[in-house]
Amino acid sequence: MAQDQYKFVFTAKEAESEGVTEPMRLPNLIGKAMSLALAPISKYKVGAVGRARSGRIYLGVNVELPGLPLHHSIHAEQFLVTNLALNSEKGLHLLAVTISTDGNDFGAPCGNCRQFLMEISKALNIKILLKSKHEAEGSFKSLRLLLPDRFSPDDVLPKGSPLLLEKRHNCLSLSGSAEEICSSDCSHLKCKALAAANNSFSPYTNSPSGVALQDDDGNWYRGWYIESVASSPSLGPVQAALVDFVARGLGKGFDKIVEAVLVEKKNARVSQERTAEMILDTIAAPNCDFKVFHCYEDLVKKMNYITIPEVENGKKGYIVRK
Amino acid sequence: MAQDQYKFVFTAKEAESEGVTEPMRLPNLIGKAMSLALAPISKYKVGAVGRARSGRIYLGVNVELPGLPLHHSIHAEQFLVTNLALNSEKGLHLLAVTISTDGNDFGAPCGNCRQFLMEISKALNIKILLKSKHEAEGSFKSLRLLLPDRFSPDDVLPKGSPLLLEKRHNCLSLSGSAEEICSSDCSHLKCKALAAANNSFSPYTNSPSGVALQDDDGNWYRGWYIESVASSPSLGPVQAALVDFVARGLGKGFDKIVEAVLVEKKNARVSQERTAEMILDTIAAPNCDFKVFHCYEDLVKKMNYITIPEVENGKKGYIVRK
Ligand SMILES: [Zn+2]
Ligand SMILES: [Zn+2]
Ligand SMILES: [Zn+2]
Ligand SMILES: [Zn+2]
Repeated sequence: MAQDQYKFVFTAKEAESEGVTEPMRLPNLIGKAMSLALAPISKYKVGAVGRARSGRIYLGVNVELPGLPLHHSIHAEQFLVTNLALNSEKGLHLLAVTISTDGNDFGAPCGNCRQFLMEISKALNIKILLKSKHEAEGSFKSLRLLLPDRFSPDDVLPKGSPLLLEKRHNCLSLSGSAEEICSSDCSHLKCKALAAANNSFSPYTNSPSGVALQDDDGNWYRGWYIESVASSPSLGPVQAALVDFVARGLGKGFDKIVEAVLVEKKNARVSQERTAEMILDTIAAPNCDFKVFHCYEDLVKKMNYITIPEVENGKKGYIVRK
Repeated sequence: MAQDQYKFVFTAKEAESEGVTEPMRLPNLIGKAMSLALAPISKYKVGAVGRARSGRIYLGVNVELPGLPLHHSIHAEQFLVTNLALNSEKGLHLLAVTISTDGNDFGAPCGNCRQFLMEISKALNIKILLKSKHEAEGSFKSLRLLLPDRFSPDDVLPKGSPLLLEKRHNCLSLSGSAEEICSSDCSHLKCKALAAANNSFSPYTNSPSGVALQDDDGNWYRGWYIESVASSPSLGPVQAALVDFVARGLGKGFDKIVEAVLVEKKNARVSQERTAEMILDTIAAPNCDFKVFHCYEDLVKKMNYITIPEVENGKKGYIVRK
């Protein structure tokens, strides 16, 4: 496959040249998405195409991890949302997901993904394409209607808490007395994992974590834990880093991952260490080096952030004081 | 807690004496359920009460596994459904689930559980209680309405395939040339795990598995893998065995599990081995002995089963030929 085939993010203009000229044309990119899916277990390739608030178009694919049970899998919708987060997108407006192997039927996400989507700010307004191959035109239905009587972040979080895709900084620093001072663009994998952990969305158990991976060519990838109010749909930090790996790794196999770092709090309520180690031990290079570094909530960093709600298009977020 | 507090199954008569005289009174058992929940991570105890087709009343509780990420957790609804399966129940009619910590509000299951419930035969007719503490009477809403535009087993399985809680026998035997012949009531843990695997519901990847556990008093527990068409909501065999352990273990801690056996197919598309080992290594007794035995589809056993649909109250299942 040519390198430009491994493309998961399209500007509005690029998407237009692929035929995505209007919402109802999102399916024009579904073939590309499906061709990139990794479904060695179920053999059931799923593609998703979504339009972010920025206007950019994102692809999502399902990723199954051979040798591991299916609850370690990444659904196409979770892939897409994670990639939105990794690309600092602020919202998701439209979503089209295949529900047939020929890619001609579009339907609602599974229950697990409907629940996962609830973490996104303004989730209820996300519009999802319903269209069978026998219809010339389909229709969009909002998540509000697809998950009635829902369990949502609002039921648990204090009012005004930043939701997924809203501005967030967890103010974490690496533990250890003799910590060196790193620049923001240093090449330490642990610093990239720390930066990831600082973006982690874990408002329910306050157990942020991040993972950074390095491949055999020295390229790095990172992702962070995304927690669901309903717990099970939560996406682990290794999975999130694998989204980055698949999205930017140009088709490399997971066995080209030679180094991995997890950053999480010591004695975190939700610890990813054992699971991360098992996943990497199962899918990464046999000699893959896996390290864990602990972090803590850094009061000095916290002092530099204030929590006065910043109103930007009606969305609340933290703002930096200095 | 007295031993009779650890009670997860009630006859209709026993339930009546607890005040569950009619569907709208299912909440009368919710306090008992919530008191049995194990939520060391989220601290969010969830209880569920359900009425099976038999008329018996079942309790479900959420079970979180300390040291492991939340996707290893068992939701209260999954607990209840698994216990229905372990007790050979044939259907679920009514369900009440708490959505507030005081146990006075009842709502729909999370998206993950709505999807999981879809595996049950006649799932769409399951009626779920919606009732806030401010209402004298609540109302029941069917899963059909709670999961519109759903992804369901019917979309994937051949017509007439047995669904969850319908009769099933996977016709598995243990691999190995010098296998001893065991009676149906032998005390080998591996034979109990095999029997569990033979009940396993894995129609999507054909990777049945079963787990048997033994505690420090020599009591045993077992459970089997339950697969979801949407993959992620699938419940692993260790989790299912933990349901049995919690339901019949009279409050014993997981650290009293001293022996465990997993039975699965060699080179199964979905292998539970690594995950089962990790879970047990994290929660069971430090010296817990974990063994894996492989099984195969036994053509001789298969010959003894025919797949003519048996019509029993309109439900299809396998019947034994001899
Ligand atoms: Zn899904
Ligand atoms: Zn550094
Ligand atoms: Zn649930
Ligand atoms: Zn035996």
